[in-house]
This record gives sequence, structure tokens and C-alpha cells, in this order.
Amino acid sequence: MPLTEDQIAEIAELRSVSQPTLRATAPGMEQHLYTAHEVLDHGFVRVIDYMGDDAAIVQAARVSYGAGTRKSRDDSGLIRYLMRHWHSTPFEMCEIKLHVKLPVFVARQWIRHRTANVNEYSARYSILDREFYIPAPEQLAAQSTVNNQGRGEVLTGEEAARVLEFLKADAGRAYDHYEQMLSQEGQQGLARELARMNLPANIYTQWYWKVDLHNLFHFLRLRADAHAQYEIRVYAEAICNIVADWVPAAYAAFEDYRLGGANLSGKALDCVRRMVRGEQVTQETSGMSKGEWREFEALLS
Amino acid sequence: MPLTEDQIAEIAELRSVSQPTLRATAPGMEQHLYTAHEVLDHGFVRVIDYMGDDAAIVQAARVSYGAGTRKSRDDSGLIRYLMRHWHSTPFEMCEIKLHVKLPVFVARQWIRHRTANVNEYSARYSILDREFYIPAPEQLAAQSTVNNQGRGEVLTGEEAARVLEFLKADAGRAYDHYEQMLSQEGQQGLARELARMNLPANIYTQWYWKVDLHNLFHFLRLRADAHAQYEIRVYAEAICNIVADWVPAAYAAFEDYRLGGANLSGKALDCVRRMVRGEQVTQETSGMSKGEWREFEALLS
Amino acid sequence: MPLTEDQIAEIAELRSVSQPTLRATAPGMEQHLYTAHEVLDHGFVRVIDYMGDDAAIVQAARVSYGAGTRKSRDDSGLIRYLMRHWHSTPFEMCEIKLHVKLPVFVARQWIRHRTANVNEYSARYSILDREFYIPAPEQLAAQSTVNNQGRGEVLTGEEAARVLEFLKADAGRAYDHYEQMLSQEGQQGLARELARMNLPANIYTQWYWKVDLHNLFHFLRLRADAHAQYEIRVYAEAICNIVADWVPAAYAAFEDYRLGGANLSGKALDCVRRMVRGEQVTQETSGMSKGEWREFEALLS
Amino acid sequence: MPLTEDQIAEIAELRSVSQPTLRATAPGMEQHLYTAHEVLDHGFVRVIDYMGDDAAIVQAARVSYGAGTRKSRDDSGLIRYLMRHWHSTPFEMCEIKLHVKLPVFVARQWIRHRTANVNEYSARYSILDREFYIPAPEQLAAQSTVNNQGRGEVLTGEEAARVLEFLKADAGRAYDHYEQMLSQEGQQGLARELARMNLPANIYTQWYWKVDLHNLFHFLRLRADAHAQYEIRVYAEAICNIVADWVPAAYAAFEDYRLGGANLSGKALDCVRRMVRGEQVTQETSGMSKGEWREFEALLS
Repeated sequence: MPLTEDQIAEIAELRSVSQPTLRATAPGMEQHLYTAHEVLDHGFVRVIDYMGDDAAIVQAARVSYGAGTRKSRDDSGLIRYLMRHWHSTPFEMCEIKLHVKLPVFVARQWIRHRTANVNEYSARYSILDREFYIPAPEQLAAQSTVNNQGRGEVLTGEEAARVLEFLKADAGRAYDHYEQMLSQEGQQGLARELARMNLPANIYTQWYWKVDLHNLFHFLRLRADAHAQYEIRVYAEAICNIVADWVPAAYAAFEDYRLGGANLSGKALDCVRRMVRGEQVTQETSGMSKGEWREFEALLS
Repeated sequence: MPLTEDQIAEIAELRSVSQPTLRATAPGMEQHLYTAHEVLDHGFVRVIDYMGDDAAIVQAARVSYGAGTRKSRDDSGLIRYLMRHWHSTPFEMCEIKLHVKLPVFVARQWIRHRTANVNEYSARYSILDREFYIPAPEQLAAQSTVNNQGRGEVLTGEEAARVLEFLKADAGRAYDHYEQMLSQEGQQGLARELARMNLPANIYTQWYWKVDLHNLFHFLRLRADAHAQYEIRVYAEAICNIVADWVPAAYAAFEDYRLGGANLSGKALDCVRRMVRGEQVTQETSGMSKGEWREFEALLS
Repeated sequence: MPLTEDQIAEIAELRSVSQPTLRATAPGMEQHLYTAHEVLDHGFVRVIDYMGDDAAIVQAARVSYGAGTRKSRDDSGLIRYLMRHWHSTPFEMCEIKLHVKLPVFVARQWIRHRTANVNEYSARYSILDREFYIPAPEQLAAQSTVNNQGRGEVLTGEEAARVLEFLKADAGRAYDHYEQMLSQEGQQGLARELARMNLPANIYTQWYWKVDLHNLFHFLRLRADAHAQYEIRVYAEAICNIVADWVPAAYAAFEDYRLGGANLSGKALDCVRRMVRGEQVTQETSGMSKGEWREFEALLS
Repeated sequence: MPLTEDQIAEIAELRSVSQPTLRATAPGMEQHLYTAHEVLDHGFVRVIDYMGDDAAIVQAARVSYGAGTRKSRDDSGLIRYLMRHWHSTPFEMCEIKLHVKLPVFVARQWIRHRTANVNEYSARYSILDREFYIPAPEQLAAQSTVNNQGRGEVLTGEEAARVLEFLKADAGRAYDHYEQMLSQEGQQGLARELARMNLPANIYTQWYWKVDLHNLFHFLRLRADAHAQYEIRVYAEAICNIVADWVPAAYAAFEDYRLGGANLSGKALDCVRRMVRGEQVTQETSGMSKGEWREFEALLS
């Protein structure tokens, strides 16, 4: 259970006070505001604020294209057009601010997306809580035998128990010692900025993360992908659900062109053209390497 | 008069429809929403949307500093502390979206601030209006005799009339020919993306510009400065007035630490220390160049 | 002829002095250093400096993937893999600095690519030269009848002469008056920061532009594209030729995956799968709009 | 000892091969290339590549200011002028690429500087080495009693031994278990992307970090500051030494205006003016809060 009673009460209070505004509002997003969507064993994602909606994307595009834009084209069609032709700036006109609680090793992947604003809880300044990510049984998996960067079979029985014991015991002991290092009852103890170094990468941290919709889509395309590590993918999926309610037309276009789409190389396009004309193409006649051909075949089946 | 009757009607309509929201609202900013603040002869700045308020800055800072933050410190004091110590990320948690109409030569300076989102009216796609910036008489100034990058004395009489005539006539003629090049009555005419090259830099363009508060302050510090070119400074000043109503505590801190403050070098600090102790310091004994010393003296007087 | 004799002499001098360095050098790029590649009637692109080569991309990737990387995979294959899977950070490890002379209306498109460093010639500080872009006869084209944002038929005969006369005469007159406004022979004249507003968008400016290879590829994909405006496309093409000599393996991958490739939506992929299986797919049964289908058909033929 | 014999041999080899180049070279920087500067107990900083030198900054500034720049002003004076007036773009024309080995908790602070390019060793893909930061005795300090975000007294005797034992034992045990979780001798073991979560924040990671000089100065100003955490400050100081040899004039200006300088608020400037005129100013008459006054007094003494 990621939320304390205090936090639940605070959310209830924030959700009870409605203010009038002249700004664009997205009804689907108002439903999400402040509510924590649970992710992993102690994590969550919740919307703190947002700016804009589908109409704001269209409005920005019309500033660009001015009187030349055919008024009759419906918004959803225009949004699809913008997405198809990589017109990114209108999507930048929407912004979202999230409060995310997540394990440190997930935070380290996440932060590599640089075009965003971040305020993270400071373990230099404050004391971290005793909360660690311990994978659910179905997520305890062995190294993939075909992919250096992925998981294979799920562990079971004694082998699962063996690694789980390591993860739980080490996290608990590291936190006990963290506390004992900080402790000042009759002892000096160590500065917080130093003691934190004892904590493992599955401890939870939290941050405010603010990003525009274009860059959020870029993040989601990479992190909601099937090849992303499960522990960040579940955050991306939780955010996808939120975005689908916030900007339904933009999300639908994103789903079709980015999540469900694929980038074909010139070589792959050439093969497609030959295959559509009825030619039998093999890896040998494709001009592609074995790896590329394997990915290409997977895409077409 | 920068606004057409249609635009005035559209603004009135947008301002008449209020929606309930659970988001943070800034009452001072709601007053500004959509309303055009006139700048120069045909330009304006108007707020299209905003995210956050003073409390949102504090809230983000408290995420960072967590339980360690003394709850008793008042928000305004914390905001001053953040500004003083260059803690920029909490200010990034506020965002503003402006619709700006401005001469092209101003837009060219403005766009050099890269950390912002922009959708500009496309003269490749659409036809620009016949609107040019013609300086008011008190802004028709000669080159500064001391500063390669500034203005000196205001022109008067025949000299003012001489240059004004050039500016007006050339703009008018350039636009006439732009129209005649586009014209297709019995003639093919030239593509819009080519014809636009005939238009001078004082023609008006417009854009949506979205930026976070930290980067906006950076823009305002440079562009509301007395050394900024007048034509961009008036936009910066109009925005300053808006921001003061939006986030009063943050703006007050910005005014004191950035707009009204100064950066002293190590040498200058050393001179200040000596002068405070009663020592008579001259350029020769200051360790500064003549230019630095002149700027330093100006600062202290 | 874009270069003065002084400039040619300066380039010759710079090219005559070779220094020893321990840094990675790209022989193909050394050939380009300082040399001006002419673009349009007065413009150019020239390489001022560069950092890294194909091997630097591989080296950075190996830092990321460490001992897990199969050493046997050849560099070119790894670079193709990185490009195919959108691993952008290794490409960011190469950097290029260009000196570009270009018309202002091209500069205005170019600057929208924000992730780059720019130093532009300041018309606030200095006086611009009398150099304007006047399209060659084969570039004087009418508005496209099918695309709001493009060119159609080339103008000929009297119609070409008519628009050319406007462009030439207005540019010349605007510059004459710019000079007369600045002139101080017996007259005060106008500050440079004001007088420049009289100059049309086809006047040439120049800048230093520094960018990493990943962001350069993004620029080139959009600007070397057939839909880009001709006047910026020729700059992109000149840069493509330079990059091909600098990082041949990375450029080849870029050419195949980005320039020659295409992004297919989920709907389009589905159609491809059906067509490869021998099914006859039409716009009606494709699930695509007419516009999407038209683009899809063009891609496959 | 942070370097293996293999690494030392590789560095020696790289340093033995010199290539001719037409690019700007900085002799002081060539001395540093590839050589590892040791930092903390297992970390290092080494220069992999660089672009530009002091002259490149001046050259870029002259593009901007063109013929208006007085040729006689010496480069060092111009660089000081640019630094004093926050002209940041000429400094962006220099670039540096570093290979850094550093503890994860330092990397987490470092990465918050977003305007840089990074390739980090992937613990998803590869296995981390058994190397942990264990503070030297003089760095084992208690929490500051006056600053929530800093250190106080150095621990001694039994108290030092107590915390050191925790740090050493927990790191060793965590790594043993990491290895045992990965181990596949007769056991499946856990995927690398999961096993890594057991490792504490003092384990070493490494990355390539590429940044322009302007943003590097921003990083150094914050991280070479006396208030920065010691463990990142020593990296900043090692980089300062390198930069001083690379761009001596720019570094000297940075040292005077940024590292050794200070930002005074409007209120503080007003107090300075009064004090210089001989007035006795106290906190009560300063208009400053107690905290600000304390910092102001410290600055002047």
C-alpha cells in the first residue's frame, strides 16, 4: 500500500475544492487529478497539474498555418496529420506535472530523458523511508539467453526463494544500518549525505516530473515498448492510461503512429515493395543482415 | 490598434466561459487570461494558459527537501531563499503560454532563448498581414557614440522626417509588391514561401510561446534590462507586469535578486570590502580594467 | 561568388598550418576544414571544427554496453544497430561546428532546431553587407495547387521577369535607404539596431552553428527531405556531403534508416501484412483516410 | 588504484600516436588527453576529446559583433567582457568529452545538469565491478548542526570505526549476493537488470560526459562551490584544473566572475552603497532577513 492515511486524506481534501478558471480544462483529466495510481509494490503516479487539451494542439497548429488551414478539417484528422508528419511543436503546447514514487534504479533510467523538469526528494537533506521494491514472484526472471539486455524464464521454487531472500534481507539490513549510522542517541552518527550511500538501488524515491506532451510521447514510445524493462514499463503504461483520458485524439494518433507503428529502412521498404508485387524475398536477396531480417520478418507476421 | 473586432469578440467569448477545475489557480492571472496587452504600434502579449502559482514553487521545493524543511518558514521567505541560492528547479514547475504579436526583428532576438516551445505563424503556408512597426517619434534615435550596440540622441525635425519616410515608404512598397507577386488574377504569381522574402524585418509576425518560470525569468533579466533594445524591452516589461500578478512572491524575489541585483567579480568584492573598511580605492589600485571600473563605479553610485 | 579575396587568403592560410594532436581525427573531414562549399548565390557552408569519428560512436556505445558487447561485431554493424533501435546518445558524442552564410528567411527556419549552439552576426552591432538572395530562373515557381506549403510550376517569360524585377529592385532600394539612414555625413542617421528593420528577408546573414551528430541527423532528415523548402534543402544537402566524408558508417546508416526509410502506422503495417499475404487492399478496406492512403500508396510504388 | 594494467597500457598507446590536424589545438589540453586524474578511492576523470580553445571563443564573438569589434582589444579582455555581461553563446563554441568513473550517488547529483550528452555503463547489459566508495577517515563526518544539507564534525575513534564497519561490510555482502544472484553454476540466477537493484549507491559506475564550456562553467560554479557535497566537489576541482590548462583566459575570467564572485540583491547593493558612504548599517536597518544579513556579512568580511 503506497499511500499513508495522511496522504489519502490530503488527496481527498485537494479533490474536494473546485475553483473556477477561464483556462482550457480537460474533463477526463480532472478525474485523475491528485489521485494516486499504484505501480509496483510501493510506487505510484499521480497528476498534480496539466495545461491544455486536444483543442490546444489544434489551436497552436492553426497559429502556424494561419488562414491557410482548411477550417473544415476536423481536429482529430489534423492531429493525425501532425503526428504523421512529425510536426512536433503543437504537441509541445500541452504540459503535464506528475508526482511519481519509484525505485532508484528506475529513476536512473527515467532521468536520461533530459527535456523535462524534475524536483526529486533529497536524501542529502532528508531521511528516506524504509520502502524497497521487491519483485513479485512472476517478475523474478533469469537472464535472457538471446538478449543481453532482457529477461528470460521466470524463476520458481527454491531458486526463486534463494534470490528473494537475498533481496529482502540485504535491503532490510542496509536500512537498519542506515538508521543506525544516522542515529544520534548517545552517538554522533553520520551526515545524511553520506549515510545514504549504504542504501541499495531498489529503495524508493519520489519526484515531481513536468514535461510537455511531445517529449512525454517520446518517453512513452521508448518506455511503454515491449523491450523496455518491466519496472519502468509499468509506469509508462500507467501514464498512457492517464494521457488517453487527457488528450484522447492525440493519444489515439500516438498509439497508431508510434506505439503500434514501425520505422522501415530503405532496404526494408524495397523488400516490402517487391513482396507486395508477389516476389519471394529471402534474407539472402534482401540486402539485410541476419539480425535485421529477423526483426523485419517478425514485423510482417 | 492591434486587434480586429473579430478578435475582440473572440476574447470576450473566451472570458465569459468559466469552468470548474481542481488545479491550482492564480486569481491574479485569471484576470489577464486572453486579454491583449498592447505593445508597440501593432503588437500585443496575451496569456493563453498557465500552470502553477507561488504555492506550486514551494510545494516542489518541499518534495526536494522533504521532512527536513521547517514547516514554519513562510512561503515567501522560502522562495527568496531558493532565488538567492540559484535553486532553479522549483521555479521550473510553473509554466506560461503566451500569444505574442511582434516585429520580425524582435522575434529574431527573442528566439535565441532556446528553452521554450514555439509555434509561429507560417509565411510559407499563409499570407502575412500589412502591418509594420514604425517607431514612434521619441524612439527614432541615432547610433550611440559610446556603445556599438545602442542608441544615442533622439532625432528631430527634418532628420526624423527623412528616416521615417524611408521606413514607411519602403515597407508599403515591399508589401504592395509582395501582394502583386502573390496575385493570381490573370497571372501565375510566386509561391508564398518565395514571395515572403521581399518583406522587411519590421513586418509583424505572431507566435505562441510557452516557457517555464525559471527560463522566463532568465529571458526577463536579459530583455527587461536597460541595455536591451527598446523594442524587445517593452515586451519584457509587459510580461513582467503579468508575472507580478501571477506569482507575486516569486516576482518580488526576482525583482530584488535579478533585476535589481548585480553580479560582482572577486576583484570587485575585494574592492567593496576595502571601501567598507574606509580605504580609498581607485581604478589603479582596484586591479580592474578601466571598463570594469567604470561599470563598478556606476553600480555603487 | 560568396567569398572575398581576403577570405580566400585566410582559408588558404588556415589550411596550410597543420598541428599534431592526440585526438581522434577523421581524414575525410580534414579535407573539408575551412573550405567554403558554395550554396545559393552568395551563401556557403564550411566546417570550422569537429569532434569524433565513426569510432567515437562505437567507443561510446561500448562504454554503455561494457563487457557484454560482442567484440566481434564490426563497427558498421553496431552503428546500424544503434540507428535502427533509436539509441541516440552514442551519436551525440560527435560534434561539428559550421560557419554558414544564408538568407535571413532560411535562418528563421533553421533556428527552430533548438538543440544547437549559435553565434550570429549582429546587425545591432555591425552593418550588414549588400548581398541578397535572388532565386535562379529555375527556382522562380508559382504556388503549388495541391500543397499549401510548396511550389508548383516554374515561372517563365514575362511572369518570371515581372517578379524578378520586384525582388531585385526592392532589395536594392531597401539597402540604399538602409545605408542612407545609417549615413552620418552631415546627418545624424539612425541607430544600426533600428535601421536594420528596413532590410528584407532575402538579405544574407551568417553564423557559427555547432551541433552534435544526433541532432544534426534530425535536422538533416527534416531539411534534406523532398518536402523541405528548396532554399534550406540545398544547405542540408551540402552538409550531407560533408557528413558522409566525416562519419561514413553513421551516414550510411542514416541514409538507409532515416532519409530513405519511412515510418508506418499500425494501420499501414496491417495493410502491408495483408498485401504480402496476397490480399487486395483498397482505401475503403484499409482503415486509413484518403490522405493517408494516398501517401501509403506513393510509398509502396 | 583506479586503473588496471590493461587500462594503463591502453592510455599509453593512445598517447603515443599523434596525428596531424588542421583544427584548433590547445597544447595545454593535449597534455591531459586520455590520462586519468584520480579522484576519491577508485574514481577518475580523463579527457577523451575537446573542441576549441580561447581563440575559438573570441572568433565566435567576432562573428557576432562583426566589423564593429575593435580589433585592438586583446582576446583576454574580450573574454572577460563576455563573461561579465553574460554573453554565453561564444563559450558554447568549445566542447569537452570526459570519461568519468564515479560512485552512483555522485552520478545521481551530476546527471541533474541536463544540458550535456551522456553514455553510461549499463548494468542492465553488463556486470558491474566490485568497487565501492569508502570515505577516507577525514571525510567521515557527522550531520551539520546548522545546515540541513551538510556535514559537521569529523568522526573519530570508535564512532568512526562503527560507521565504517557498516559501510564496508554491507557493500561487500551486497556484492557477494549480487554475484550469487547472477551466478549460473547449477542455478538459473537472476537477470542482470534485476540483480543490480541489490547494489548500494556507493558502487562505482562510469560514463562518457560531453558538454560545452558554458554549461561546464555552470556545472563547476555549483559543484566546485564550498557548499557542494565533498564527493562531487573533488570531481569538479579535478575538472577545474583541466579547464585552466585548456582555455586559460576563459578559466581566469570564470574564476574571477563566477567562482570568486557573488550575486548581490538590490537590497544588498543598497546597503553596500550606504556603507561605502560611511553609514553604519545593521540587520535591522538593512531591509534583509536575518539569514540574508548573515550571508551578506560573511561576504563582506
